[in-house]
Amino acid sequence: MIVAEFSIVPMGEDTSASRYVRAVHQVLRDSGLKFVPGPMSTALEAESLGEIFRAIEKANEVLAHIGVQRLITSVKIDYRRDKDISMDSKLSAVE
Amino acid sequence: MIVAEFSIVPMGEDTSASRYVRAVHQVLRDSGLKFVPGPMSTALEAESLGEIFRAIEKANEVLAHIGVQRLITSVKIDYRRDKDISMDSKLSAVE
Amino acid sequence: MIVAEFSIVPMGEDTSASRYVRAVHQVLRDSGLKFVPGPMSTALEAESLGEIFRAIEKANEVLAHIGVQRLITSVKIDYRRDKDISMDSKLSAVE
Amino acid sequence: MIVAEFSIVPMGEDTSASRYVRAVHQVLRDSGLKFVPGPMSTALEAESLGEIFRAIEKANEVLAHIGVQRLITSVKIDYRRDKDISMDSKLSAVE
Repeated sequence: MIVAEFSIVPMGEDTSASRYVRAVHQVLRDSGLKFVPGPMSTALEAESLGEIFRAIEKANEVLAHIGVQRLITSVKIDYRRDKDISMDSKLSAVE
Repeated sequence: MIVAEFSIVPMGEDTSASRYVRAVHQVLRDSGLKFVPGPMSTALEAESLGEIFRAIEKANEVLAHIGVQRLITSVKIDYRRDKDISMDSKLSAVE
Repeated sequence: MIVAEFSIVPMGEDTSASRYVRAVHQVLRDSGLKFVPGPMSTALEAESLGEIFRAIEKANEVLAHIGVQRLITSVKIDYRRDKDISMDSKLSAVE
Repeated sequence: MIVAEFSIVPMGEDTSASRYVRAVHQVLRDSGLKFVPGPMSTALEAESLGEIFRAIEKANEVLAHIGVQRLITSVKIDYRRDKDISMDSKLSAVE
């Protein structure tokens, strides 16, 4: 699997972002990808980079459709070829 | 509180980073700051930006001392002044 | 336009990454997207999120093909709907 | 030198961030650190991690003082011990 985390910061809105985060989580649920919300970003895993990017693109589209005028997206991706990884295996490795 | 997440990627080492992540977690335990390991980064909270930065600086020093020759650190910080936040309150807000 | 910056950190290699950065720049030249190398990351602009993500996916594939076993990619994207932006307009706005 | 890049996204404000970016650049000029504005973030270099973190902390304080209620700061740092680096040397290495 490819493991990633991302967050989307709305600009031009008020200081609370929780309803946007919930909308992003709904996109992830609809995508069927496994994801884990965190305090600063959302972790997810997928079989390919394309699946991860499509989910993040869809999340941007949904927030834009809700009316957010500017979206700052941060993504970090761990693409490892020498070993199969998952969110669970990565957490287990450091415990 | 100020909530943040960070990760440190060692370069010039082999592909596994778990022993470095464990060393960073030990720094955080020693700092007394509350932290939560995640699949891609470690979340933490502190009373000030200075406390967060000192912990991340110490983590870099410890990994350098172990012998890592190049360290790429990523940090994201949520500094909110209109409302008291914590890692727990941020997660609860989106559930 | 959508403006973004990204970097890819190779793990399991030596401390120098310059040949990998040059390979990524070649991918960007081949993509036809406008890009500007920086000291820490490469900025680029495109008409859509999809174009940006395809370029970054291709860059990962090329580095994997060269033999890098683990790649940590960071991306930040500015998707603004209320105003047309470009790398140039963003820099001009703050000068 | 240690080379870094960072950006600060204001939340609870309108979609334009240019006056905040200019305020951050003034903090950097006052700090005496060398910096280079980019389309998505500002690169800088310093002799120590502490100098970089103090500048970013000061930038947060100045934006909070101007009245921004929520600030999302992203930082990436390249701390290399096997070779002296600078923003210029990093750019030259990939040209």
